[in-house]
Amino acid sequence: MEKTSLGRNLSFMTELYELTIANGLFKSGKADEVAYFDLFFRKVPDKGGFAVFAGLSQIIEYIKNMRFDTQDLEYLSQKGFSKEFIDYLRDFRFSCDIWSVPEGTPIFPNEPVVKVRGPIIQAQLLETVLLICMNQQSLIATKANRLVRAAKGTAVAEFGTRRALSFDGAFFGSRAAYIGGCVGTSGVSQGKQFGVPVINTMIHSWVQMFDSEYEAFCEYARQYPDDCTLVIDTYDTLRSGVPNAIKAFNDVLLPMGKRPVSVRIDSGDITYLSKRVRKMLDEAGYPDCGITASNSLDEYIINDMLSQGAKVDCFVVGERLINSASSPLFSGVYKLCAVEKDGEVIPKINLSENVSKITTPHSKMLYRLFDRETGKAIADVLTLEDETIDESKPYTLFDPDFTWKRKDVEDFVARRLLVPVFKNGECVYSEPSLSDIREYCSEQIDNLWEEVKRFENPHTYYVDMSQKLWKIRNDLIKEHKGVK
Amino acid sequence: MEKTSLGRNLSFMTELYELTIANGLFKSGKADEVAYFDLFFRKVPDKGGFAVFAGLSQIIEYIKNMRFDTQDLEYLSQKGFSKEFIDYLRDFRFSCDIWSVPEGTPIFPNEPVVKVRGPIIQAQLLETVLLICMNQQSLIATKANRLVRAAKGTAVAEFGTRRALSFDGAFFGSRAAYIGGCVGTSGVSQGKQFGVPVINTMIHSWVQMFDSEYEAFCEYARQYPDDCTLVIDTYDTLRSGVPNAIKAFNDVLLPMGKRPVSVRIDSGDITYLSKRVRKMLDEAGYPDCGITASNSLDEYIINDMLSQGAKVDCFVVGERLINSASSPLFSGVYKLCAVEKDGEVIPKINLSENVSKITTPHSKMLYRLFDRETGKAIADVLTLEDETIDESKPYTLFDPDFTWKRKDVEDFVARRLLVPVFKNGECVYSEPSLSDIREYCSEQIDNLWEEVKRFENPHTYYVDMSQKLWKIRNDLIKEHKGVK
Repeated sequence: MEKTSLGRNLSFMTELYELTIANGLFKSGKADEVAYFDLFFRKVPDKGGFAVFAGLSQIIEYIKNMRFDTQDLEYLSQKGFSKEFIDYLRDFRFSCDIWSVPEGTPIFPNEPVVKVRGPIIQAQLLETVLLICMNQQSLIATKANRLVRAAKGTAVAEFGTRRALSFDGAFFGSRAAYIGGCVGTSGVSQGKQFGVPVINTMIHSWVQMFDSEYEAFCEYARQYPDDCTLVIDTYDTLRSGVPNAIKAFNDVLLPMGKRPVSVRIDSGDITYLSKRVRKMLDEAGYPDCGITASNSLDEYIINDMLSQGAKVDCFVVGERLINSASSPLFSGVYKLCAVEKDGEVIPKINLSENVSKITTPHSKMLYRLFDRETGKAIADVLTLEDETIDESKPYTLFDPDFTWKRKDVEDFVARRLLVPVFKNGECVYSEPSLSDIREYCSEQIDNLWEEVKRFENPHTYYVDMSQKLWKIRNDLIKEHKGVK
Repeated sequence: MEKTSLGRNLSFMTELYELTIANGLFKSGKADEVAYFDLFFRKVPDKGGFAVFAGLSQIIEYIKNMRFDTQDLEYLSQKGFSKEFIDYLRDFRFSCDIWSVPEGTPIFPNEPVVKVRGPIIQAQLLETVLLICMNQQSLIATKANRLVRAAKGTAVAEFGTRRALSFDGAFFGSRAAYIGGCVGTSGVSQGKQFGVPVINTMIHSWVQMFDSEYEAFCEYARQYPDDCTLVIDTYDTLRSGVPNAIKAFNDVLLPMGKRPVSVRIDSGDITYLSKRVRKMLDEAGYPDCGITASNSLDEYIINDMLSQGAKVDCFVVGERLINSASSPLFSGVYKLCAVEKDGEVIPKINLSENVSKITTPHSKMLYRLFDRETGKAIADVLTLEDETIDESKPYTLFDPDFTWKRKDVEDFVARRLLVPVFKNGECVYSEPSLSDIREYCSEQIDNLWEEVKRFENPHTYYVDMSQKLWKIRNDLIKEHKGVK
């Protein structure tokens, strides 16, 4: 395997029932029947108005490297899987078609963000990794963007590596946070692997290692005169931290002709302290020395701090970002929506006992309609794969649950959001750079109405169905429930 | 690197400031000064009475394989780190002493669960991985144990791989859930790597792949007559799922002389449905067919279901366990608590502006006192490293914050909880098997009073300090705050 960000064989990053199903389909001669699956999510985290899609790059990398090694096959053999099935896995060659919305795209519940078409046995085996990649990175990109929106232009840095709940939690989380708009990460491997800007700071143990705070500050300033950030709350922020920092700037940096970068406050009432610290620094001749704030921040605290006039130049966010602590789940699911029989696409539905779990059948296309004048997104529309939306005519949106709720839109541009990623098993997608994804994300979110972006009771963005698709879904429900 | 559960070089799974500090200490001639660090946590998740420690095995594995490869060193060179420091890292040899409480031990806030002594530069570099390993696995083991306690003897299976927020989230999470008392996992790699029992089920897409539910059930029963679990809520649990399942059992399994394992309900009001399903199965001659329940379960739902008489033989728990969704953070920290100077141990403190963040200084030992008669844990006591607790005399416990709260205990056994893991960089710990850890965990939790184990307002278990340690801490606070 090539040296990748995944860096290991993930073929067994799956659940036993996936292999059981695959083996069963293989034995019943259904392995090569063509199925369609949708990857979508059900609820926006933090009751927000939209999520940010991320994780496609790792999905691509996983698929490109998908194979079962000797150890894997031996394990399956011990578990009683048939020789024929194991032989099939040994020669595994991926041959599905995959479409996806690009990373950084704002996405909404119940619309397919990745669509898979191919031999059922292959499409089924993708489930676990597709879900993990989408769920993790979309969750963190979405959370990061909330923090960035709350900070209203002040930088937000992701310092979560130490607080992440797993190695990959940190590793891919920092990538996602950057897509969502953070300025960088503290994580070294994330910088090395993904090119996320890596940001420095000073920590308490440095201060404790010296006989005095002043001595600790001076030694740091001497060693890092060009990147001098001091943590000032080890003993007492206002009475000890700031005076010692100013003295160290005066005694060490000034004679070298250098300027400090910032001081960091990591405890106490940071809003109050930041104003006092700002004043002390200004009066001492360091109006250019920034103030960095850390300590379990989230979008609500940042919002409050700014509204109370906190003097902060960079918010450093750790555990509540890298784990999306206030809303730690992303409700992605991967559902069969059609099969092919003799070249014909047969829609399939999963009814479930919970109405919210009923799936949207058929091979579909996802359109986003933008207002031609303002560029703002109006609605998303799910259609059958081969339906087109005629931009030259008004289009009638209607609510799939409350069909009497209708709205005619005109002067719009309809963009197909699902783009080809794999064709017959070959990757046909040219991946943008991470910074391009980040920029695209920011632009696309600019295209959403403010009403969709607010934190409290955001407007529910329309995700509608074409008349044809709606009818197919409705007929299938009636058929299975025995309604005439 | 040997083929391990980590399986990759994690030397850069750290934050830039750790390397900056290490480089700074190296340049100021302090690299080899001996420091003491404590790994501890601050708050029990879910407002519980205790947590379960897990993750030590991965800490050991990481340390054994710790080294910086050429690529790492090149990256640091580009980032401007000095040649001398890079040479030091190239020849990195671990030489610290480490003590830890064994995996599976119930632990309490603010007591060291891992203690590191060694050259500051090495001890500092461990921070990120120690935190990640402890935080993830302790969080999930703690959550798993809550679920297991709620289930009161009914099996709890962890089916979280697909719902985990990262590959490692699934991988190490399943290990931790097993330690906490789950009967097994759905995750294949976790079975292969750690020997966690792997459990099967049927999923909806199997049902959808066939022309009818009955046909899907029959084909599965034919293929897996010895492990036949059917998911019965794809279309309609009571009107379609159960009748089709019974028919398939009758038509396929019965003629083969086989019995079904279980049916699974994944939506709807499972408490109600389970009672109806139980009755239908019993009446059809399948009282031995189990009922498995899934669908966003947690300890409170399980508790409610059982109190309302749900007929469930196995609770399958996914996203709310593998991500500890209701309380997704584990508040581990890693703090310098002492340094050595000329052979003498100098205690160090971090005062912070938040009282709850003030650390406990000095090189310490952690004792757990058990009642000699009942075997129940009475209290934990932190002492100076060289203090012993004399079991032959009454011991006076006192609250470190409210020192007038005192309690004399006698007839107790004092057990040292921190055991040697590394001595001078060499691993001296013989790791128990995963199933032994699981059993030890269950025994140790049996030794806690019920009051500590309840979910609502559990009793706060005593974690006290010896008189000597308390005085040192108090004197340091006064000294830094200028109190006479």
